[in-house]
Amino acid sequence: MKQVFASIITIGDELLIGQVIDTNSAFIAQQLNHIGIWAHRRVAVGDVWDEIWKTLEQESAVSDIVLVTGGLGPTADDITKSLLCQYFQTELIENQQAVDNIKTIFQDREIPEKVWTQTLVPKACTPIVNKRGTAFGMWFEQIGKFLISMPGVPYEMKGMMEDFVVPELQKKFELPTIAYRTLLTAGKGESVINEIIQDFENALPENIQLAYLPDLGKVRLRLTTSGADSEQTISELDRQFSLLKSLLADITVSENGDSLEAALGKLLTEKKLTVATAESCTAGNIAHKISSVAGASHYLLGGVVSYSNDVKHRVLGVKTETLNQYGAVSEQTVREMVQGCLQTMQSDVAVAVSGILGPDGSTPEKPVGTVWIAVGSNDNIVTKCLHLRYNNRERNMEATTNAALYMLFSYVQSFS
Amino acid sequence: MKQVFASIITIGDELLIGQVIDTNSAFIAQQLNHIGIWAHRRVAVGDVWDEIWKTLEQESAVSDIVLVTGGLGPTADDITKSLLCQYFQTELIENQQAVDNIKTIFQDREIPEKVWTQTLVPKACTPIVNKRGTAFGMWFEQIGKFLISMPGVPYEMKGMMEDFVVPELQKKFELPTIAYRTLLTAGKGESVINEIIQDFENALPENIQLAYLPDLGKVRLRLTTSGADSEQTISELDRQFSLLKSLLADITVSENGDSLEAALGKLLTEKKLTVATAESCTAGNIAHKISSVAGASHYLLGGVVSYSNDVKHRVLGVKTETLNQYGAVSEQTVREMVQGCLQTMQSDVAVAVSGILGPDGSTPEKPVGTVWIAVGSNDNIVTKCLHLRYNNRERNMEATTNAALYMLFSYVQSFS
Repeated sequence: MKQVFASIITIGDELLIGQVIDTNSAFIAQQLNHIGIWAHRRVAVGDVWDEIWKTLEQESAVSDIVLVTGGLGPTADDITKSLLCQYFQTELIENQQAVDNIKTIFQDREIPEKVWTQTLVPKACTPIVNKRGTAFGMWFEQIGKFLISMPGVPYEMKGMMEDFVVPELQKKFELPTIAYRTLLTAGKGESVINEIIQDFENALPENIQLAYLPDLGKVRLRLTTSGADSEQTISELDRQFSLLKSLLADITVSENGDSLEAALGKLLTEKKLTVATAESCTAGNIAHKISSVAGASHYLLGGVVSYSNDVKHRVLGVKTETLNQYGAVSEQTVREMVQGCLQTMQSDVAVAVSGILGPDGSTPEKPVGTVWIAVGSNDNIVTKCLHLRYNNRERNMEATTNAALYMLFSYVQSFS
Repeated sequence: MKQVFASIITIGDELLIGQVIDTNSAFIAQQLNHIGIWAHRRVAVGDVWDEIWKTLEQESAVSDIVLVTGGLGPTADDITKSLLCQYFQTELIENQQAVDNIKTIFQDREIPEKVWTQTLVPKACTPIVNKRGTAFGMWFEQIGKFLISMPGVPYEMKGMMEDFVVPELQKKFELPTIAYRTLLTAGKGESVINEIIQDFENALPENIQLAYLPDLGKVRLRLTTSGADSEQTISELDRQFSLLKSLLADITVSENGDSLEAALGKLLTEKKLTVATAESCTAGNIAHKISSVAGASHYLLGGVVSYSNDVKHRVLGVKTETLNQYGAVSEQTVREMVQGCLQTMQSDVAVAVSGILGPDGSTPEKPVGTVWIAVGSNDNIVTKCLHLRYNNRERNMEATTNAALYMLFSYVQSFS
């Protein structure tokens, strides 16, 4: 079986002046990777005719498939369609499906003049239906090579990839079957995990690859194998995945692709527990993350953002003496915040945080990055102090949120 | 003055399997754009010797400057340093500064064997100090062309760009002086703004470019000019910017690069007002956004996340009859949430939201995307109903948050 190579070309000046972060390439690469196509090059170029033309030639020479995004809008700087017409020596014709699509999208609203140019499609291509916008995609095929043009709007491009491009490519090429297993861990860094699983990693068979995807306070591990059409390969992958799980059992959050928030939600649902938050420095971010999972209203009752000491005292019942004697960032304060939260929100479990994320608010005893977290129920409360090293408010915020969510997850896991 | 061209090469398999979104390219492109260098090509390649080599040759042929990130770690798949050694026919030598740097970073901790390889630097390059990690950057200069290699870790790369690369490039090239003015607007979409300023846009002089950067519920507009060393160009830029501001005065949030949250913070500080939130569907995201600005503790008192109706009633005092008669997603409910929030938090102004973000929770009368927002003080309360069209929980969450922040901003702006 021959390895199939792809190049991804993203078009647009906005990418080259750094106005926009290119998320399309990552999405396309991921989709291709999942079906066994290796996106070996990604190139971004501006809205410049010669540059695009040269890049198309260059990438077509080294790849079986060239996927292009961008430049399909109705304004003057969008030149991809006319360029491709010339590139493939074809002409534009009106496409009835595109006409109907635009009428459906606009319904009773007036259709601007410019939008009608979107009904023209190169004769030599197979048009790709866009259910999410007016620009059609284009699929060109020439001597066993493929050029696919899609809009730059991520939401529209994603629809085309999933509905048409991926299944079509699977028909056109004989591809290796790729299988993978992912394990989400939290609470330990990449280097610590690396040490724990070093022997396992060294002993992995050649056709199974291990990848680390670290995030703040979380690491996702992925085992991938190609040639997964054979039962033997799959059972070997599962055997290795079991080994990996057993090595990292005490820091495992999920083994099915679930996020930390989703895994927490399932656990709360399973144990029929409700949760509430009392947040100082994270100011609602923990509650927000918990709520990001569809159906969170079944276990998230609410929370208190107690940014000021007055709110900590009045709404959560933290004693004035506690605040005076130990300060707002202290074990005693987060303990009382959990107690107050359980009482105010009437939830089964609660999480509380108070910390100094910077740049200001630090003292010699409590430098930036000092964060206290407490998790508990009416029966018992556990606490932890973080010493974050980031000199960056946003990173400290994310790291604190992830640490609190993981502490909550572990607490609920052992809750009986 | 000759236009200076740059290529950005990012190295790493993780970019090609879509595991990681490349934010480095956008940052580098932005930095270069600000000093008048045009990053006309961005290429991502894997950790493959021949691919990297070929790409270096290709990009050096078409650019004055080639900036490379990634492949500088101490593990086996990091090959950039040895490749560059061979590419420039030089050898590795120990660098005393790198040794000292690593000792400083590790302090009393034991230094792993692998890390010592980071003290070796190619003889032919100027090493670039890394204050944020162990990998040094490399600056090669050959017949007026420059090749700059930096780590792939964004935080480390950013430090090198700001401290060394940008100022050095400014010394090496005669660059046009770029000047720009940005205007942040909210509450109107890109196409509406486009209509309002169409005549202005058509009449812009050739050396001033207008760019749109739309976000959910917000649009940033940027006017850029090169050749800003002349007083005349700058005064023309300022004149055009004044025109733009006057056209969009009623939807302007900031004209100095401030985010919506930062502009809101300044306004609250200036008017000596405190704020609190009562959030249902956004579950803390509004408070979190307000808190993301350093110094937010001066005006943000706190908030209540009232996800359940019980919390809306008990903590915020929303009447049971109101919830029964009008439902949780209604004008009446968000009005009472604001009132309850003002009382519980004792803030000068408060914002409240309640809506259906999907995928579940909708009814025939209140489809997904129905969101009520209220903003007010003890004197008066204003309300608004959104009908969001995104079939996506996360986008609805962001759009709601931005709309609520902008309503709060407008309210505070007219507060007297």
